[in-house]
Amino acid sequence: MALIGIIMGSQSDLPVMQEGIDIIKSFNVEYDVEIVSAHRTPENMLTYGKTASQRGLKVIIAGAGGAAHLPGMIASVTPLPVIGVPVKSSNSIDGWDSILSILQMPGGVPVATVALNGAKNAGLLALQILGASDPIIFKKMEAYKHELQEKVAQSNKSLKK
Amino acid sequence: MALIGIIMGSQSDLPVMQEGIDIIKSFNVEYDVEIVSAHRTPENMLTYGKTASQRGLKVIIAGAGGAAHLPGMIASVTPLPVIGVPVKSSNSIDGWDSILSILQMPGGVPVATVALNGAKNAGLLALQILGASDPIIFKKMEAYKHELQEKVAQSNKSLKK
Amino acid sequence: MALIGIIMGSQSDLPVMQEGIDIIKSFNVEYDVEIVSAHRTPENMLTYGKTASQRGLKVIIAGAGGAAHLPGMIASVTPLPVIGVPVKSSNSIDGWDSILSILQMPGGVPVATVALNGAKNAGLLALQILGASDPIIFKKMEAYKHELQEKVAQSNKSLKK
Amino acid sequence: MALIGIIMGSQSDLPVMQEGIDIIKSFNVEYDVEIVSAHRTPENMLTYGKTASQRGLKVIIAGAGGAAHLPGMIASVTPLPVIGVPVKSSNSIDGWDSILSILQMPGGVPVATVALNGAKNAGLLALQILGASDPIIFKKMEAYKHELQEKVAQSNKSLKK
Amino acid sequence: MALIGIIMGSQSDLPVMQEGIDIIKSFNVEYDVEIVSAHRTPENMLTYGKTASQRGLKVIIAGAGGAAHLPGMIASVTPLPVIGVPVKSSNSIDGWDSILSILQMPGGVPVATVALNGAKNAGLLALQILGASDPIIFKKMEAYKHELQEKVAQSNKSLKK
Amino acid sequence: MALIGIIMGSQSDLPVMQEGIDIIKSFNVEYDVEIVSAHRTPENMLTYGKTASQRGLKVIIAGAGGAAHLPGMIASVTPLPVIGVPVKSSNSIDGWDSILSILQMPGGVPVATVALNGAKNAGLLALQILGASDPIIFKKMEAYKHELQEKVAQSNKSLKK
Amino acid sequence: MALIGIIMGSQSDLPVMQEGIDIIKSFNVEYDVEIVSAHRTPENMLTYGKTASQRGLKVIIAGAGGAAHLPGMIASVTPLPVIGVPVKSSNSIDGWDSILSILQMPGGVPVATVALNGAKNAGLLALQILGASDPIIFKKMEAYKHELQEKVAQSNKSLKK
Amino acid sequence: MALIGIIMGSQSDLPVMQEGIDIIKSFNVEYDVEIVSAHRTPENMLTYGKTASQRGLKVIIAGAGGAAHLPGMIASVTPLPVIGVPVKSSNSIDGWDSILSILQMPGGVPVATVALNGAKNAGLLALQILGASDPIIFKKMEAYKHELQEKVAQSNKSLKK
Repeated sequence: MALIGIIMGSQSDLPVMQEGIDIIKSFNVEYDVEIVSAHRTPENMLTYGKTASQRGLKVIIAGAGGAAHLPGMIASVTPLPVIGVPVKSSNSIDGWDSILSILQMPGGVPVATVALNGAKNAGLLALQILGASDPIIFKKMEAYKHELQEKVAQSNKSLKK
Repeated sequence: MALIGIIMGSQSDLPVMQEGIDIIKSFNVEYDVEIVSAHRTPENMLTYGKTASQRGLKVIIAGAGGAAHLPGMIASVTPLPVIGVPVKSSNSIDGWDSILSILQMPGGVPVATVALNGAKNAGLLALQILGASDPIIFKKMEAYKHELQEKVAQSNKSLKK
Repeated sequence: MALIGIIMGSQSDLPVMQEGIDIIKSFNVEYDVEIVSAHRTPENMLTYGKTASQRGLKVIIAGAGGAAHLPGMIASVTPLPVIGVPVKSSNSIDGWDSILSILQMPGGVPVATVALNGAKNAGLLALQILGASDPIIFKKMEAYKHELQEKVAQSNKSLKK
Repeated sequence: MALIGIIMGSQSDLPVMQEGIDIIKSFNVEYDVEIVSAHRTPENMLTYGKTASQRGLKVIIAGAGGAAHLPGMIASVTPLPVIGVPVKSSNSIDGWDSILSILQMPGGVPVATVALNGAKNAGLLALQILGASDPIIFKKMEAYKHELQEKVAQSNKSLKK
Repeated sequence: MALIGIIMGSQSDLPVMQEGIDIIKSFNVEYDVEIVSAHRTPENMLTYGKTASQRGLKVIIAGAGGAAHLPGMIASVTPLPVIGVPVKSSNSIDGWDSILSILQMPGGVPVATVALNGAKNAGLLALQILGASDPIIFKKMEAYKHELQEKVAQSNKSLKK
Repeated sequence: MALIGIIMGSQSDLPVMQEGIDIIKSFNVEYDVEIVSAHRTPENMLTYGKTASQRGLKVIIAGAGGAAHLPGMIASVTPLPVIGVPVKSSNSIDGWDSILSILQMPGGVPVATVALNGAKNAGLLALQILGASDPIIFKKMEAYKHELQEKVAQSNKSLKK
Repeated sequence: MALIGIIMGSQSDLPVMQEGIDIIKSFNVEYDVEIVSAHRTPENMLTYGKTASQRGLKVIIAGAGGAAHLPGMIASVTPLPVIGVPVKSSNSIDGWDSILSILQMPGGVPVATVALNGAKNAGLLALQILGASDPIIFKKMEAYKHELQEKVAQSNKSLKK
Repeated sequence: MALIGIIMGSQSDLPVMQEGIDIIKSFNVEYDVEIVSAHRTPENMLTYGKTASQRGLKVIIAGAGGAAHLPGMIASVTPLPVIGVPVKSSNSIDGWDSILSILQMPGGVPVATVALNGAKNAGLLALQILGASDPIIFKKMEAYKHELQEKVAQSNKSLKK
């Protein structure tokens, strides 16, 4: 049963969102992926959000660009944590619209926003949220952080040559 | 029967939206006003939008601030023209978030955006939309434009003194 | 007789504006297209705006970039609704100048602004305005919105494969 | 034992952060509050982050303004989810520096960023994270969302009068 | 006969524009002042511009805020140099809209833009333009620049105390 | 004898500034061109500015990018009108630095700023300044404006085909 | 003999710059303060910069607002390190102009830029530069950093009460 | 023994930082280069900073992009002057995040910020800091400034041809 639900406003967001999918896969955590458009399928979107916890999801990652309403609207109908990925889509003004329309949610309805095109971090954050109560994922996250360190050490070695 | 529906995300938007209400009143056109929150009452919001044309509305004016999703979400469920008023609310970043999250709608779902806090112009635009097929409102709009001219002439008189 | 007038400040705006023309064509609504420059042909521009309603136009779409004065100046001489398309032209600063000089109109003279390069939405908005009093266009708009939904369903199918 | 750790870069951030503390209190969840400065007490800061999970914390909320390094630095030393609150402090440039230096974390080290001065939403997000595996908190979150709806209904009543 | 024409979009711009009027007065150069609104009196505006050189004007200073079209539209109908003053009016977004809609004129139609609310510099620039061919004004401008130096010397004296 | 002095901070600005040179050439007005760097040759720069009017110059056009100090520094040492061209150079942040460091001059020392990369308009503005007291240049400027109109008419013809 | 030269473009910058003066005083390092205007006294400014090292100065702190040319112009004539303080002066656009016109210096002529209104940090940076070769100042700087830590500890004590 | 320490957050910053390395090399001053990541190797980073002065370093240059915490965190643990280079990395929003998260340091902990991608100027600034107490470097810096002048003279010669 999927624990992390990954949605995006349009198929064109997939290349950006893929990095988030890949990191979740590498942790062996179950997830599902769907295209859910706030503006083209508003009712499906609300249904997705309202049924999310019953379907067993623990966290939702939503990516969108431009006037990006998907993460905030999902957050309005679920008590689960929602992570928003601002996508620098082709119709976006250098990403500023994507960021501000996801980040600046009113008091009462939070969206956990990550960096522009930061789907990888969205995936990691979802895993950290699961890891807060799941010791196996927590251990993997610790290991992941050690790998990050290792890569810096390797970069330094190649730099010295 | 109301022809123009005016909605806003929060009661705190009312002082800004009032200018739009006043101009519509002055044209003797029927309207109704409601607080409809995209993030706190998402389902009521969709219902409002989906039933709007059946209830006789011809245009909808929606004001919101910050991550302002109300105008765009209403536009997603009605074939009526939707006018968005970016409100410079207390939690807004100088209004940039309000503007961008209303203006930058994806292809397929337009929102007619007016200036920051521009509720008066939203009211006028709604009247122009009605006036496109209603000669009485059209005449009043012509008269309104003459008044604007008059005021400049008066300003010049007071300047010369 | 054309119901929608489409104008732009320069021939170089045509590729952006074409998307608006195409959507109007697909609804079988009559329109005309002209290059009207606020800064190079200011008097022709005012004439265009002042005679628009007599010529039968019901809505005007005006696209311009940089210090984009065309939509606002047209709005100053006609009681018809005017839709402004900010064009990200080669001399524009990432589109910010185009957006702000169209959006931020003073009280009394609205311009219905759409997204940067959002000519398609300008066309749809013009059709929605006509549809508010024309049941045939209104029905087509409803059908158009259903198609948007369909496309999301198809995207999901191709995603699942 | 505290489940949520709330830290801030300076005592002057307390008025903003208090809203987050209050919402957590109202859910009867244990928390602790500390001033931890990335720039004045960098080593204490790292110790705080490194020992956080051993001390029983499940989520950390970090608020900071200007070149706001606290949330990101804490995130660099703990596998727990870290929520960042950009504070519009007196030395901030309208909050843009606070937002960008918290939001734009590199791949590998996420910070869950909320709106400018959005400490209330940071608190709610922390509770949602706990609620993902704690049914009591989850139920309270559902109730909280119903209250948000109720308030809109009340606003509408007072509007109608 | 007035050599410098000073116009502004609204009476509310007068406090800002007054500094420009004052500096011109102090040089004993004739000028006239008028309220000319691009959006409320578009035809008077074009007439003002088209007849400017016949009336003896040598330079025009135009101040406006928000979607500030006045300077650029005047420039479109006169071969005289036009100086634009971006006014930080109450409906402006921190002045960015005023600046960009005056500054970013297309090739062929220049507007000499000065700083936000920089009416004093607009006045000085108009005087420099006249001074380029008028030795008396040129001498006064040289004297003015010496005064600027003197004031710095005085500031230093008061600082040393 | 040159009437218009054209300077730029670096040889790399020449492609942008060439459009200004070309338009001045086409009016048969004498000019000279020089590289004068505020930051690399500060003393030559001041000498250039201080001797400009003695050498017969009537207007100076200065182009620069990034922290663009050349136009403002020249303006500080000459009573002649100075036109600044913000250049979007390779080290510029999308041109914002170039614009703001030329435009935002303090009261007392104006720079007539044109659009980003707007060297053509700088040339036209210089010619308008000369034309204010030179009837031959004035006539040419009127003719130039008629040509602009003609081009729009031609664009419309090619559009209709 | 003064080791640190502190200059500012206008007496109105003194309240901001005072924090820098105070921190230098508290380290018992000699300094002098002067008003040197890039735009009103350009030649004095160059003289100040060119003679700075002969007069014994080791570092220069220059504060300015708007189109802030003082730090960069001083840097152009001295081989000494120059620290620039962007001042949010009354004519500045929220400080963006001050920052960009100081920060974005071309390759070859650095200015060490500190935060908006960051005169205190400018003073500390000047002391760190001296401290790099002066063990007494270096020791004091270490002590200063310990005090910063102490204050956080005290804040935490007052928070716990 | 190295006098200047050059660090960067990631190997991908090396092409930008190389210009700084090259200028230091050309002055024959010793330096060392390392990859030190604030977010991936936070403890190594603090160690680097805390031991810097013992290892003989006199100045540190730190380059980073996005939420660039490296320069500020190094500055928090060393009394040496720290120069920050905002890098326009692939994940940066046009460099704004890099600039603001380095520049806007709180009072007490300065970072000497140079232009976006301004590694060359960072190198020169480091040399100027050393030159303030080292007459040989000081002389070389004077010579360097003469070369800058020479290049302008040569550019002018090639322009005249």
